[in-house]
Amino acid sequence: MRDFSRDHSALALNTATLGHNVDGFGAGWSAEQVIDGCAARGYGGVVFWRREIGANAAAIGQWARSAGLKIAGLCRSPFLVGPLSPRGREAVLDEFRSSIDMAAALTAPVLTIVVGGVEPGTKGMSESLKIVADRVSVACEYAARAGVKLALEPLNPVYGGDRSCLVTVRDAVDLCDTIGADNLGIAVDVYHVWWDTDLPAQLSRAGARRIYGFHLCDWLADTKDVLLDRGMMGDGVADIRGIRKTVENSGYDGVCEVEIFSKDNWWKRDPNEVLDVLVERFRSVC
Amino acid sequence: MRDFSRDHSALALNTATLGHNVDGFGAGWSAEQVIDGCAARGYGGVVFWRREIGANAAAIGQWARSAGLKIAGLCRSPFLVGPLSPRGREAVLDEFRSSIDMAAALTAPVLTIVVGGVEPGTKGMSESLKIVADRVSVACEYAARAGVKLALEPLNPVYGGDRSCLVTVRDAVDLCDTIGADNLGIAVDVYHVWWDTDLPAQLSRAGARRIYGFHLCDWLADTKDVLLDRGMMGDGVADIRGIRKTVENSGYDGVCEVEIFSKDNWWKRDPNEVLDVLVERFRSVC
Repeated sequence: MRDFSRDHSALALNTATLGHNVDGFGAGWSAEQVIDGCAARGYGGVVFWRREIGANAAAIGQWARSAGLKIAGLCRSPFLVGPLSPRGREAVLDEFRSSIDMAAALTAPVLTIVVGGVEPGTKGMSESLKIVADRVSVACEYAARAGVKLALEPLNPVYGGDRSCLVTVRDAVDLCDTIGADNLGIAVDVYHVWWDTDLPAQLSRAGARRIYGFHLCDWLADTKDVLLDRGMMGDGVADIRGIRKTVENSGYDGVCEVEIFSKDNWWKRDPNEVLDVLVERFRSVC
Repeated sequence: MRDFSRDHSALALNTATLGHNVDGFGAGWSAEQVIDGCAARGYGGVVFWRREIGANAAAIGQWARSAGLKIAGLCRSPFLVGPLSPRGREAVLDEFRSSIDMAAALTAPVLTIVVGGVEPGTKGMSESLKIVADRVSVACEYAARAGVKLALEPLNPVYGGDRSCLVTVRDAVDLCDTIGADNLGIAVDVYHVWWDTDLPAQLSRAGARRIYGFHLCDWLADTKDVLLDRGMMGDGVADIRGIRKTVENSGYDGVCEVEIFSKDNWWKRDPNEVLDVLVERFRSVC
């Protein structure tokens, strides 16, 4: 058991926290600067987004390893269904395979999957989830050959229409069971699951072998924007400590990845300040 | 079994559909005009909000009965917990009792409960739900003496912070079981539950004796505002027909109450047009 009072090697940065809606990171930092900033503060890992990596996956992976920082994952698959997905099964699978290739080149052990919303022309979740199952199943085989694990991330039900027809951990574990691939698991994000009283039972079902990621942030009681107004840990109403305990009691022993989309607050701050606050809040709140 | 192809007496209007964010209804209609408009089109019922009733509950109830329209319910209790509730247990219970009195005077068989969000100073749902259980339990006794039933309405998890720490039908049925009052049940609203693949199992648990209301609208895939941009039935991604079937297969045989908060679309239209469209969509979509 780590001694969390003295080190924070369990803390990882998801780079979206430093500004994500603009080209590059906040204040124009490069991927290498982000890695160095995290390593200097004793973070255990970092998770990049595909658009930040481009053709430099191998070099960035090497830079992180040299800095002693783990590449904890890669965000993310294309949307697999729904109004925002690439058009058609082959286009989806092509981009999905490219994402897996990038994760492998980066030496990211896990690629996060955000499945996309309700497929146009259908109603409710069931038809869309069937399409998702088909596409994830194909990708699992490809990812297994690349040595990459895939993490299904259920999103908050507010995104059910356009971004994710997968909205509960229960449905995500069901999908894992349906597909039955050894390299398929789930990612648990406080923002998406904080409201779910069924979480302990579902994480217990998932177990250590199927929990591939744990994401931190907070849900602001008076959130202004459900996409870009996530809260810093401690500023909202989520029982973060309780959720972390539940996740770790279920056997998860990986990093806690902070992912805060916050256009009007944290994205406007100096990345150095944000990285410092994350450490402080991780120690005091999580 | 009603013949839905030829009558729509199962259709009820929740008056919020005619404009709700302004004084009075859309186009300045009175409660009596709303009743007459619904009765003339063959609606089976109407549900008012407290602010529209004021001291005229008995007279409005009488007007509806004379018009052959059922008062199907009353919206709603005060928030019982959370940042938007009246301050303190006694203030909450006072307003709760007044709401019950109004329902009785109106001859509304059911008062809807929206429980309120996470109680300030606490994290997650569990503490808040305990406070809710206490307050609802007290109100159930009062409501029983008044001949009023109370319907717990779980809201979409997006409202979990400020408006409802009760966000799933599962939690609502659990709360009914905990309190164990004969006049306590649930209200099922398409907007709040459309994403929930666990719905059939939970409605089966609830059964006919505990489903007191069913609310219609649609979830727009590209919703602009989670409070005031609900969709007209057929314009969104909810499987409304499937949900209705599930609700009625669970034994519910009451009205289908259309409740559409739509500041920039339906609230801007002539109430006569809205009432006509509801009938058409109810027949063709639901």
